[in-house]
Amino acid sequence: MWPPVVVVLAVPYPALDGLAAIYGDQLTGKVVVDVSNPVDFATFDSLTVSPDSSATAELAARLPGARVVKAFNTNFAGTLASGETGGVPVTVLVAGDDADAKKSLIEVVTAGGVQAGDAGSLKRARELEAVGFLQMVLAVQETVGWGGGFAVRP
Amino acid sequence: MWPPVVVVLAVPYPALDGLAAIYGDQLTGKVVVDVSNPVDFATFDSLTVSPDSSATAELAARLPGARVVKAFNTNFAGTLASGETGGVPVTVLVAGDDADAKKSLIEVVTAGGVQAGDAGSLKRARELEAVGFLQMVLAVQETVGWGGGFAVRP
Repeated sequence: MWPPVVVVLAVPYPALDGLAAIYGDQLTGKVVVDVSNPVDFATFDSLTVSPDSSATAELAARLPGARVVKAFNTNFAGTLASGETGGVPVTVLVAGDDADAKKSLIEVVTAGGVQAGDAGSLKRARELEAVGFLQMVLAVQETVGWGGGFAVRP
Repeated sequence: MWPPVVVVLAVPYPALDGLAAIYGDQLTGKVVVDVSNPVDFATFDSLTVSPDSSATAELAARLPGARVVKAFNTNFAGTLASGETGGVPVTVLVAGDDADAKKSLIEVVTAGGVQAGDAGSLKRARELEAVGFLQMVLAVQETVGWGGGFAVRP
């Protein structure tokens, strides 16, 4: 049995619609990872998605045959490169409705030497996007650095 | 000049309306701290406040003369007692529109030996409540312990 194919859409939120339109058929059955933070960068005061939804929920609606999960959006790029969030191990949080898809992604991430944790159902992508946004606010205000932010502690 | 009076409403979300009705007049001019996490405990799948608002925004609307801030809701009780979130120093995040009110609360918290950081405007209470909710989900799922959760790293 082949391991599942994991496709990471490492693009900004505004690119997701176009990718879904072009590649939707090819993503059927695959684990599709949304990493986006749909921040309104014009105001830096809200997200651009509906407050009772998420970028991931929107993507999942456009890709009904794919196994969509949210991950990586609560990790600043530098923390994934260094393996640390402000001096403690970085943790990738993963949310989605397909338990096997989450498990596959968590295995890929941990095989790369990075901790990963289950953050619940696809609905929790909304909270992950709030965490990602707030973390950016903290960095812009210099409450934390871009190598720090939210660490997940046991 | 007297230091500002800081009133911490250390009560669950459903109690806030009644307190505002009874004590509203006495809270005028005071720094009022909302610590609540308005989680729907029946479903444990959403907050009970409108998705484009927050418990703190609702409270501020009921207490127009008070200087309302959000704080402590992203800290499990045990972490405030021990001073640590999973082995690293605990940080209290504070959001509000009154800069002096936030500063006063941050001074009180840090005087008690606990780190505190500015998390932005009152609108950011929405994201703090998302963090508080997601942290509870992580603990219930045993992704983290009740002495752990989200730490804020520099």
